[in-house]
Amino acid sequence: MYQLIDGKELSKRIKEELKIEADKLKEKGIIPKLAVILVGDDSASKVYVRNKSKACNEVGVEFEEILLNSNTSMEKLLSIIDELNNRKDINGILLQSPIPKGLNIQEAFERIKWEKDVDGFNPINVGRLMIGQDTFISCTPYGIIKMLEACDIEIQGKNAVIIGRSNIVGKPLMQCLLNKNATVTICHSKTKNIKEITRTADILISAVGKINIVTADMVKDGAVVIDVGMNKNDKGKLVGDVDFEKVKEKASYITPVPGGVGPMTIAMLMNNVIKATKLQNNIIN
Amino acid sequence: MYQLIDGKELSKRIKEELKIEADKLKEKGIIPKLAVILVGDDSASKVYVRNKSKACNEVGVEFEEILLNSNTSMEKLLSIIDELNNRKDINGILLQSPIPKGLNIQEAFERIKWEKDVDGFNPINVGRLMIGQDTFISCTPYGIIKMLEACDIEIQGKNAVIIGRSNIVGKPLMQCLLNKNATVTICHSKTKNIKEITRTADILISAVGKINIVTADMVKDGAVVIDVGMNKNDKGKLVGDVDFEKVKEKASYITPVPGGVGPMTIAMLMNNVIKATKLQNNIIN
Repeated sequence: MYQLIDGKELSKRIKEELKIEADKLKEKGIIPKLAVILVGDDSASKVYVRNKSKACNEVGVEFEEILLNSNTSMEKLLSIIDELNNRKDINGILLQSPIPKGLNIQEAFERIKWEKDVDGFNPINVGRLMIGQDTFISCTPYGIIKMLEACDIEIQGKNAVIIGRSNIVGKPLMQCLLNKNATVTICHSKTKNIKEITRTADILISAVGKINIVTADMVKDGAVVIDVGMNKNDKGKLVGDVDFEKVKEKASYITPVPGGVGPMTIAMLMNNVIKATKLQNNIIN
Repeated sequence: MYQLIDGKELSKRIKEELKIEADKLKEKGIIPKLAVILVGDDSASKVYVRNKSKACNEVGVEFEEILLNSNTSMEKLLSIIDELNNRKDINGILLQSPIPKGLNIQEAFERIKWEKDVDGFNPINVGRLMIGQDTFISCTPYGIIKMLEACDIEIQGKNAVIIGRSNIVGKPLMQCLLNKNATVTICHSKTKNIKEITRTADILISAVGKINIVTADMVKDGAVVIDVGMNKNDKGKLVGDVDFEKVKEKASYITPVPGGVGPMTIAMLMNNVIKATKLQNNIIN
């Protein structure tokens, strides 16, 4: 009998705890504030930004949206980042991806001061995560670890298999799991015999972005299955990477889509904004 | 029939090629220079530093050794790094590890300007490697990739298993192998059933530092075996992690110790010094 990992419920609890933190900061006269830059008019991005704004409202974080049209130059984007870097009232800066082709997103991420890099995409934060130092961990991997911990799922000594090696999920998640003493394997489009590998997984995470890429025959009995995918099926419904109905019968724990990893990502963003605010104001704990 | 991967011979070839690069720089009036900081009097460290100095001499890189006694303060160490960061004649800075307890080596590594960080230990360089950007790759993992390439060993689509998750070998090597499209697993002291995992490896790398930790029963027939270990046995002889005499009979390729990974590490350090010199002088290729 599988257990559903309710990311929505858990994220709600985390946001409530963060609200207490935010309130304490306000008593000290400090108001946490997140700036989100959105370039162009990708409709999915707009939804993501709206959800982030909603979460800010729940936690008591101020929110400033910077909307740039799709023919914004790289110079302009960088100068806006510099401005936000220098503003004392802004604690966290997030550049919503994707940005229009022709703009270099890595250069932009690198320009965001590491102290305000609440997405954890600046190479300094990426490097610190890899070295095992305290840092801003990117929100999706961080949310996954929090979910596993909330369910008391043992990570140490377990075989964790990640499908997908993106810079925003697969690679940082590998570091997070390694830091928690899992044995970690990372698979991707060039992996041969992927089924043989995924069937060794005690914890299986799919972060590919393809419907039904994880089928029941790829999953070991009793595995924990985490679905990072966010895909629209032919009926326009949001679904994950995992063939949920069949895989759930083999899993011990499984995340739904929607209501699994997605809400956790936003909760951890809020966590990082509070962390950044404390860091910038020299508040320990 | 196994083939020995001769790191000594390959490193010689690489250093010869680098000498040509160094000579070209000299024609432009640019003399590449490496500064090595050694704190305390660890005898193994002294040998390593001597070998690096010898390699500099072979390639035509100037070498400056900064010897600090073991009760040097952190402030002093950082101020010396700052000085070297600012000196125009110094292109690469290397802090020999270990440094005495009480000094924070991570803080020191982080202080070395990324442009002069020829060891690739600054979080910016670590992060860039993880993101897949051009950067200074730490020398041992880089040397291993060069060895595999020199032997025309296919990496893409192969199962690579790394034993050991250190910041200087295991973790960056994982990134390097992933960037070359291998499916990568990283094992460590908390891994259970390690034998089952290592036997799936087409390419097996041990970076633990324990004699005979890799035995023949852990190795798949025809595997490529790379031994990063540098251990002294009870006769005072330098040996690796791999039970060489038995494992070689199963391997397709295997590195010896000494004469395998060790010389490659130093060759790649020279590579990084030349790269840093070019970068600082805006020379492309």
